[in-house]
Amino acid sequence: MTFLDELRLPSGPVDLSAWSTNAKPNFKGGKSGGEKTLAGLGPRLLDLQTRLYAQRDVADARGVLLVLQGMDTSGKGGVLKHTVGLVDPVGVRITSFKAPTKQERAHDFLWRIEKAVPALGYVGVFDRSHYEDVLIARVRSLAPADEIERRYGAINDFEQQLVDKGIVILKCMLHISPAEQKERLLARLDDPTKHWKYNPGDVDERQLWDDYTRAYEIALERTNTDVAPWYVVPSDRKWYRNLAIGQILLETFESMDLDWPKADFDVEAERRRLAADTVGESHA
Amino acid sequence: MTFLDELRLPSGPVDLSAWSTNAKPNFKGGKSGGEKTLAGLGPRLLDLQTRLYAQRDVADARGVLLVLQGMDTSGKGGVLKHTVGLVDPVGVRITSFKAPTKQERAHDFLWRIEKAVPALGYVGVFDRSHYEDVLIARVRSLAPADEIERRYGAINDFEQQLVDKGIVILKCMLHISPAEQKERLLARLDDPTKHWKYNPGDVDERQLWDDYTRAYEIALERTNTDVAPWYVVPSDRKWYRNLAIGQILLETFESMDLDWPKADFDVEAERRRLAADTVGESHA
Repeated sequence: MTFLDELRLPSGPVDLSAWSTNAKPNFKGGKSGGEKTLAGLGPRLLDLQTRLYAQRDVADARGVLLVLQGMDTSGKGGVLKHTVGLVDPVGVRITSFKAPTKQERAHDFLWRIEKAVPALGYVGVFDRSHYEDVLIARVRSLAPADEIERRYGAINDFEQQLVDKGIVILKCMLHISPAEQKERLLARLDDPTKHWKYNPGDVDERQLWDDYTRAYEIALERTNTDVAPWYVVPSDRKWYRNLAIGQILLETFESMDLDWPKADFDVEAERRRLAADTVGESHA
Repeated sequence: MTFLDELRLPSGPVDLSAWSTNAKPNFKGGKSGGEKTLAGLGPRLLDLQTRLYAQRDVADARGVLLVLQGMDTSGKGGVLKHTVGLVDPVGVRITSFKAPTKQERAHDFLWRIEKAVPALGYVGVFDRSHYEDVLIARVRSLAPADEIERRYGAINDFEQQLVDKGIVILKCMLHISPAEQKERLLARLDDPTKHWKYNPGDVDERQLWDDYTRAYEIALERTNTDVAPWYVVPSDRKWYRNLAIGQILLETFESMDLDWPKADFDVEAERRRLAADTVGESHA
């Protein structure tokens, strides 16, 4: 069983309470084994990502877009640091979406998202995403109900376009329990080097946990397409979350048959040209 | 002696032939020691960069812009992978500048550069930069002579503005010898997994080595300001280049007195609020 298969959300109605937040599907070990396994994925991830990047200018170049969504403290930042940090930053484009600015709100909700779509050859990562526009926007009624309703289809159309361009979309819902969130918020308060991560507003949003859960269930159900499926990642264990997303990335790369691009020049002719080249030798 | 002091270009006329390409200033050891030393910088670099990032929304937030320039094969990509890769990707924004597009050429040369300036709190990295507009642009006469002439001052004004905003600018010239470049180009030809990095056009540019050297000397001299000085990094040894830039980053962070931001909320009140919070407990 692959992580892609194991964590993939089946189509149909979604009941998040049926999904464990602290399970560790597909992995037998504990924390130290999990961290070691993730580190062990590094070289293979780096090799395949470099192949993806190497192909960025060829005709059939492809890209990857990793979408990270989850409640506050679910660990989007941790995945960036520990998992995305394993690959070569030259080929990574991270976009952290905050509350939209006034200018952004004056445009369609996808306007700012489209500007952040990774070029082919890149691994784009969305730390929050267009899904905020059907999550907090729904819970907090930040847009009229019919506009929210319209967005699910607009998202599916948008994602279909990306897929048609050659981008593989991995949508990961980092699934934590409210009790785990409370622990993490308290831990931030206890550590002055983590106060910057603490936002009292997060506790206000937390009061709406059930509303957010329902908004996630609706969004997951309505945007869980074959071309851009959702993965539900049990995230109460940080190490498992980081490992699972590393595995999802790796399995995705492996499924893409990433070969090194063929030389579009005459290797032997270039070798002869360089061998005869004496640039700078008079200085030696 | 710090790396910042040791590698800093003194003001005045520049003669690059007086700068060794294979020295290892400030470091006594060899390759394995250098790689180990660089890895050892990782935790401290990460800690300080996280502080920089944590401050991104406070009033006196600052940023860092690392500008990487050098002849083809000098190792800009290697620095991204081995040195920039040590910090948290969430706070890094890399921009790789290619030959300007038609749209970019229709604007002032700084138009595309300004769009890539890192927000405060971030480490921006320019893989090539606005200096191309006084390097290849000068060597290949891609703009009229008086326009090239104008650009040195425009660059200094632009960089002064960034510094006034709170951005520390580190401009690193990766200095290699033509013999080392030849070795690296041949190595790319010998390895099919590196053919994608080989561009026959690089050999054409290489024929203009002396012209490029002179263009670098002029650019370095005229833009080596107190607010945005140049560092000349001997880069024939890849490990030394990666280490030196890691040290330059670290010493820069250390000079910035990066404290953790103070909580702008009442920590005790938040703790009490969370302690009393029972969200989700009915599900338990």
